[in-house]
Amino acid sequence: MSRLLRPDDLAFLDAQRVAHLATADAAGHPHVVPVCFARIGTCLYTPIDAKPKRGDPWRLARLRNLQARPEAVLLLDHYEEDWTRLRWLMIRAATAILEEGPDRKAALEVLEQRYPPYAAMRLASLGLPVIKLVPVRVTRWVAAADQAAPA
Amino acid sequence: MSRLLRPDDLAFLDAQRVAHLATADAAGHPHVVPVCFARIGTCLYTPIDAKPKRGDPWRLARLRNLQARPEAVLLLDHYEEDWTRLRWLMIRAATAILEEGPDRKAALEVLEQRYPPYAAMRLASLGLPVIKLVPVRVTRWVAAADQAAPA
Repeated sequence: MSRLLRPDDLAFLDAQRVAHLATADAAGHPHVVPVCFARIGTCLYTPIDAKPKRGDPWRLARLRNLQARPEAVLLLDHYEEDWTRLRWLMIRAATAILEEGPDRKAALEVLEQRYPPYAAMRLASLGLPVIKLVPVRVTRWVAAADQAAPA
Repeated sequence: MSRLLRPDDLAFLDAQRVAHLATADAAGHPHVVPVCFARIGTCLYTPIDAKPKRGDPWRLARLRNLQARPEAVLLLDHYEEDWTRLRWLMIRAATAILEEGPDRKAALEVLEQRYPPYAAMRLASLGLPVIKLVPVRVTRWVAAADQAAPA
C-alpha cells in the first residue's frame, strides 16, 4: 500500500465535493468538520469562508486547533446503500495556515473554479485564511464484494 | 442553542445513513472514520463490523484511541450543491466500549434493523465490540439562504 497519493487516489479525491477535516486541540480533544477543498499537485487546500455572524475567523475551532497542533486528517469517503461500492481515502497531513502569498492565491483561484458559490461570494477577495495540507501518510479502502461495511 | 439533542436534531440524525467519528490517540493525534450508527433514546451506537482480513478488531485505531481517551465527536452532515440546503449536527460525546450486556445487545438489534447488510452478516452474532456515545454537548448549523458554506 502506497503511503503517498496514487493516480487512482487523485481521481477519487477530485470527484468528491466534500471532505471531513479532523483536528485536535492542544489538550488532544478531537474535532471534525465538513469542508470543501481543492487540490494543486499533491497538496490540498481548504478555505475559511465568510461567516459574518461568527466574527473573527480565528475563533474557529479548526484554526485554534491547527495553531496548537499543525496536523490533520482529511477523509474522503463515498457511501451508498450497496456496500460493495463503499470507498474511502484517508490523508494524514502536516498543515499550514496561509494568510498571504502566491500559494494561498492559487488555492483560492482553484476553489472559486471548483465551487460556484465561492466565486459568487468572491472568496478570494475576502482576506480569509486558507488551510494547506501536505500529505504525510495516505491509507485507502475499497469494499470487497463479499465483505463490506463502512469502516 | 441547546446543548442537548432537540427533536429536530433527532429527526435529522435518524435520516442520515453515515456519520463521521473523530477520536484522538493518547498523544492527541486526530483520527476520523465514516461509521454506521443507531440511536436508542439519546445515546448513539456504532459497531465494529466484520473485517476478517484485519484480524484483531482491537488493533483498529478508533478502539485504541477510545481506550486511551474515551471521548469522540460524531458529525452528521448533509452536503449538496445548493449551499442553502447545507446542514450539520456535531455531537461531542463520552464513549464506552461495550463487549457484552443488554445495552450492546439492544444496539446490535437496532443496527441490524437499520442496515440490511448488518443483518445479512449476522452482526449481532459475531461477538464484536460496540462503541456507545453519550452526548455531552451538541452544536448544529443550518445554512442561511444568503450566506452558506459547508463549515
